[in-house]
Amino acid sequence: MIVQEGDLVLLYFSEDRHYIVKVTRGSTYSFNEGVIRAEDLLGRHYGEVLRTHIGVKFRVVRPSLLDVVYRKFERRTQVIYPKDAALIALKAGVGPGSRIVEAGTGSGCLTAVLAYLVRPSGVVYTYEVRREFIEVARRNLRMLGLEEYVVFKEADVREGIEEQNIDAVVLDLAEPWAVLHHAYKALRNGGVLACFLPTINQVERTVEEARRTGFIMVEAEELLERRYKVRRGETRPELRMVGHTGYLVFARKP
Amino acid sequence: MIVQEGDLVLLYFSEDRHYIVKVTRGSTYSFNEGVIRAEDLLGRHYGEVLRTHIGVKFRVVRPSLLDVVYRKFERRTQVIYPKDAALIALKAGVGPGSRIVEAGTGSGCLTAVLAYLVRPSGVVYTYEVRREFIEVARRNLRMLGLEEYVVFKEADVREGIEEQNIDAVVLDLAEPWAVLHHAYKALRNGGVLACFLPTINQVERTVEEARRTGFIMVEAEELLERRYKVRRGETRPELRMVGHTGYLVFARKP
Amino acid sequence: MIVQEGDLVLLYFSEDRHYIVKVTRGSTYSFNEGVIRAEDLLGRHYGEVLRTHIGVKFRVVRPSLLDVVYRKFERRTQVIYPKDAALIALKAGVGPGSRIVEAGTGSGCLTAVLAYLVRPSGVVYTYEVRREFIEVARRNLRMLGLEEYVVFKEADVREGIEEQNIDAVVLDLAEPWAVLHHAYKALRNGGVLACFLPTINQVERTVEEARRTGFIMVEAEELLERRYKVRRGETRPELRMVGHTGYLVFARKP
Amino acid sequence: MIVQEGDLVLLYFSEDRHYIVKVTRGSTYSFNEGVIRAEDLLGRHYGEVLRTHIGVKFRVVRPSLLDVVYRKFERRTQVIYPKDAALIALKAGVGPGSRIVEAGTGSGCLTAVLAYLVRPSGVVYTYEVRREFIEVARRNLRMLGLEEYVVFKEADVREGIEEQNIDAVVLDLAEPWAVLHHAYKALRNGGVLACFLPTINQVERTVEEARRTGFIMVEAEELLERRYKVRRGETRPELRMVGHTGYLVFARKP
Repeated sequence: MIVQEGDLVLLYFSEDRHYIVKVTRGSTYSFNEGVIRAEDLLGRHYGEVLRTHIGVKFRVVRPSLLDVVYRKFERRTQVIYPKDAALIALKAGVGPGSRIVEAGTGSGCLTAVLAYLVRPSGVVYTYEVRREFIEVARRNLRMLGLEEYVVFKEADVREGIEEQNIDAVVLDLAEPWAVLHHAYKALRNGGVLACFLPTINQVERTVEEARRTGFIMVEAEELLERRYKVRRGETRPELRMVGHTGYLVFARKP
Repeated sequence: MIVQEGDLVLLYFSEDRHYIVKVTRGSTYSFNEGVIRAEDLLGRHYGEVLRTHIGVKFRVVRPSLLDVVYRKFERRTQVIYPKDAALIALKAGVGPGSRIVEAGTGSGCLTAVLAYLVRPSGVVYTYEVRREFIEVARRNLRMLGLEEYVVFKEADVREGIEEQNIDAVVLDLAEPWAVLHHAYKALRNGGVLACFLPTINQVERTVEEARRTGFIMVEAEELLERRYKVRRGETRPELRMVGHTGYLVFARKP
Repeated sequence: MIVQEGDLVLLYFSEDRHYIVKVTRGSTYSFNEGVIRAEDLLGRHYGEVLRTHIGVKFRVVRPSLLDVVYRKFERRTQVIYPKDAALIALKAGVGPGSRIVEAGTGSGCLTAVLAYLVRPSGVVYTYEVRREFIEVARRNLRMLGLEEYVVFKEADVREGIEEQNIDAVVLDLAEPWAVLHHAYKALRNGGVLACFLPTINQVERTVEEARRTGFIMVEAEELLERRYKVRRGETRPELRMVGHTGYLVFARKP
Repeated sequence: MIVQEGDLVLLYFSEDRHYIVKVTRGSTYSFNEGVIRAEDLLGRHYGEVLRTHIGVKFRVVRPSLLDVVYRKFERRTQVIYPKDAALIALKAGVGPGSRIVEAGTGSGCLTAVLAYLVRPSGVVYTYEVRREFIEVARRNLRMLGLEEYVVFKEADVREGIEEQNIDAVVLDLAEPWAVLHHAYKALRNGGVLACFLPTINQVERTVEEARRTGFIMVEAEELLERRYKVRRGETRPELRMVGHTGYLVFARKP
């Protein structure tokens, strides 16, 4: 496979130093390790070893979905971590053909994950009240060629969800409880509600309101991610970890 | 949507009591709450409230992917938890069209998640040495209509991986280090290696061997899942939790 | 050191099987491993290997403070785990000579730990409204010879704390917020308030009330204890763990 | 109670800003909030509100043991966290009169906790090979008036432990396994071995060697401490946490 105009490319120098760039003819990329021109990359095979202008070696690597979403997306908001996005997507059964409603869009990180999974026949309807966030998210999704699987809606989801027979409703909002009756109506039977919530108070209120609305199988949980520093005979967890990202609430429409 | 012959149906009595059954003409299903006949279910709308022969109410609900995989699959082995399966799938970029190699198949829980995500144009090649596990996994996948996206290979993955240009290799094996050079060869540039490992010693050995084999961006981590008991004014974590499922190791082919 | 009448003795058969008994002349102790008479134990050296009547070997071992408190105390209530008792004691600066107020007494597990630490010149004033719990706790403390360091008070701590110039007030109550003004008055300058709280709602209310009452350095936290199964080449965390015991709130009187 | 020459005093400005100083006639203490002279403090009652030279109010508060140990001790080494020190002390049954062996001394933080608890009749024998650490630890202990309960031994504990009939041996060493036979000999029956270990490999080797040496009730565990940010309606765990301090191994001499 060959590097082409418009590709997102991971330039790998070492375990601590790797960068993602978009290859656009005429561009130059400067790092501590030296300068690289887009023309140095175009037409090269992925996997090749090249050198910067001062001779430092690097590898040309195809980045993963998460590399682009979490390292290259423009961010205007707090974003959902991969561990949480992954569990939301799987528990909500998001896959090819799924029809998903999301609110709010934010920077579009979760939107991108969902859009990636529903291709080619599914769709993500994403609600956001702040137009500038929609523009950011749209640019982000375009970077990955996922824009066509997303319907951006500049609207307050608290005023209603127009879609019907939806497979999952994913809420990353300050007050999800105000949207649950709309979510209920929009979902198909067995459809999944998934909420991401920073505080335990939001969890309490959301779970209560979900039960009142008629949702079943209401669950609240959180994931703690612990990274390890692995070296022969000196293996231990990392000294610092993220202590909290958010709680997750799941429920089903009966 | 209407319940049809062959459907998997979730019969919901209460938050603590719900069962999944396969609707096959002539079958009867017995629970503490009473007996239900397949004919009571066929032709009903999902979401309807029905009654058992002794009058206990229940709802007919469409189960989720995970309901079926984790509650209905026949199990012969330890299975990977949803939290781990979800992160493996997302970090490995598994989506529509992905070409994945998995070993070993085990009961096919992870196979099912991967197959669900690669539809309709992707494929999961799954290696397993024990024929009886392959048969179990095949029956399990068939239950979800996912069999056609999987190539079951009765073979020892330590002797080689035949596939080329693979997007991700997912290993749930006692000695993954013995397979890493095969995985490396099978992967495309930027392709992801994902390993599930019960002991820290396996992590140490796998990480070392991955580095030696030429993999980059080698990471080891684990996820802890904490469930909450939520009631207004009495919210707290569950008193018991799963203390350990397994460690995850991820790496990329450069 | 020699086993004497009245001693608490740990009879060690194997890592999975060990029992604590009180040696009282004339008693017999029956286990799956056979019968032991008190007379077999009296006068023996701690550390000796003996045999039951059917010949199974065991060791006579001096139990630790925690062995007795957590395995031999009569329990009528939920008890505070060692991890929590330990941090409470240390953060509250409990040591020889400390004057501590505790409420409620419950089964006296925490009382015993505190009493053990304040010897010989300190004292634990422990409030409890239910007389039967006081009797249980008194018997438990007597077992360890710690009764003389404790003043049992059959009183509702919400109606006031009589003591003054106290080093620490330790609360294990359903509604600690109702006692904070009394605790504040009873504490010396720099004295520590420590609360054990099962729900997050109690934490919120206690922290708020502590700030309002004038306490400073108000902190809320929890400890998660993870045990490991250690075997050469097969080391991993235990599969099950306690997911929650309680939250801890600490504060100081300025 | 009145501030006296030589006192350690906590100057409390706000929840985020408080400092510990030693009151020595003639000293001045400078902070962002202004300057304070020792003479401003001497003779004042603990608890009084005073002002800096620019008029910022503060409280004079008696610091706790941990305030001094963890914020005022001179540090030359990694130190054991309070959560770990607390559990070690309690599981080892450290209390008034205990005779404890510790190695290595390091900066003396754990030594101070142990010495505080064994007063007035107990003693901590602490081994350390590096003379400069002994001097640091001695100065630190003197600050708290705990020096007299400690015997500092400039010696390599791997060459032997001279003491006999010891209640607990506490090891914070890179290679504790090399000391276990000495620890075994030094301990009384039922005496506790407690080890603090940064890596899982050390745990594996220590547990194995402890079993081989004849220790019983060998346990390995770790404590995770999670702090909360508590505000009415916005309560959640802190976003960052310490991901790892060290593992703990406990065992008994039978």
